[in-house]
Amino acid sequence: MMGCLEKLAARRRKTGAILCIGLDPDLEKMPAVVARGAEPLYHFSRLVVEATSRYACAFKPNLAFFEAYGSKGIAQLEKLLAEIPSEVPTILDGKRGDIGNTSRLYARFLFEHLNGDAATINPYLGQDSLEPFFDYPGKVAFVLCLTSNPGSADIQTLQTGGRAVYQGVIDHLRAFDGRYGLVVGAQHQEMLADVRQRAPNAPLLIPGVGAQGGELAGAVTQAATGGAPALINVSRDILYASSQSDFAEQAAARAEWYVAAMKPLLSP
Amino acid sequence: MMGCLEKLAARRRKTGAILCIGLDPDLEKMPAVVARGAEPLYHFSRLVVEATSRYACAFKPNLAFFEAYGSKGIAQLEKLLAEIPSEVPTILDGKRGDIGNTSRLYARFLFEHLNGDAATINPYLGQDSLEPFFDYPGKVAFVLCLTSNPGSADIQTLQTGGRAVYQGVIDHLRAFDGRYGLVVGAQHQEMLADVRQRAPNAPLLIPGVGAQGGELAGAVTQAATGGAPALINVSRDILYASSQSDFAEQAAARAEWYVAAMKPLLSP
Repeated sequence: MMGCLEKLAARRRKTGAILCIGLDPDLEKMPAVVARGAEPLYHFSRLVVEATSRYACAFKPNLAFFEAYGSKGIAQLEKLLAEIPSEVPTILDGKRGDIGNTSRLYARFLFEHLNGDAATINPYLGQDSLEPFFDYPGKVAFVLCLTSNPGSADIQTLQTGGRAVYQGVIDHLRAFDGRYGLVVGAQHQEMLADVRQRAPNAPLLIPGVGAQGGELAGAVTQAATGGAPALINVSRDILYASSQSDFAEQAAARAEWYVAAMKPLLSP
Repeated sequence: MMGCLEKLAARRRKTGAILCIGLDPDLEKMPAVVARGAEPLYHFSRLVVEATSRYACAFKPNLAFFEAYGSKGIAQLEKLLAEIPSEVPTILDGKRGDIGNTSRLYARFLFEHLNGDAATINPYLGQDSLEPFFDYPGKVAFVLCLTSNPGSADIQTLQTGGRAVYQGVIDHLRAFDGRYGLVVGAQHQEMLADVRQRAPNAPLLIPGVGAQGGELAGAVTQAATGGAPALINVSRDILYASSQSDFAEQAAARAEWYVAAMKPLLSP
């Protein structure tokens, strides 16, 4: 079985780009005919996956959008994951984290029960809360580093003992090369360069392009620096390219546009 | 309908103590006869709730223990919550947090779908990631402040601009009095006093007593300072007081012991 990093490398070669498609199925934004039917989270997402998978380096289901509907929502996520082509890695975006014995259960949920190739995790509880997520060979745990929202200034960029909190997070992860990645919002382009230097081998997951306003070309250029993998995530701008029954077709057209915009900025 | 703070005050009067019972149903620790049956997370937890509710100021289900089993685990949590007596508030311990539009969905899951009286949330993404959890009158969102694990030193207690990161978290919450609480591990007794001073009205949720080794008397004494509510959480030491078929009875005896140990330290 291929590990997450091998899968990412293969997808980059195949698509020529580094597009991660975020799956945030929102009943208020999807076409009413799908929203009113049975298992709308599953059906909407599955149609988007079918239409866009040829452009996707990875898919990133956002767990909150499924969890909002409780066990029935999670059941739709389970069904969806079983149908995502296994060559396209899945990043389960739940930003989980707890003390060690509890993190172990979250890791089991994400990497065993749901069999995700990767997941996002939250570092506020420190090193021992993250380690259980690094116990899975072939999987990658993307640690929140610099997020794409204004509140990222409240803790992440505070200076402490000569470095920012987010830099300390990176420095603590050195021992886990090959098992961890970093989430860095596209808005922080000057800091992206710094992150690349501090963690030259860490895969980067870069959200915030598209509906969140991050600028694409700069993010791709920074992401492409150095040899480590990077992913530019786009969610709403692809999923809701159309609110009509042609939504999957329009999502594919938008994904194709992103791939075409990225290609010239990436070395082959 | 009574809000979470009114319910907590009523339970404190009724039980004479401030015991929160953590519900962490673990198949490897519960009696094999329950673990091997149908819906073991639900049945084990329900029997503990029935046996101990007279001693409980609150129940705190830990979401990871249910989520580890996917939609079937969450379905057992839904069933359990429907049977917890409504006068005993529930604190849904999931430590969720994401950018605003996603936090809104987590809040909907915790406070609407599951109808929890309170929840735990993670502040690493900053102020705008927390605000959606404060939009629910009568509910309380307990923000992680100082956790009970060794890794709490990695970010939470770092000094930044004249205060520790955890102190900055508290200072940012001022505008939300009555809607937020703070999680402070029992190990940090000297800092508990500082937290009480910075946030005199905030309810405190204090984990780390019992199996995690925090000292009870000191934690209760600190917790009882000032007029705001506080809860001392105990999970494993009550749930797994016996690994035999008398587990519920032994859990009740252990909960009774904690209540008796707390009473003399609390003003009536």
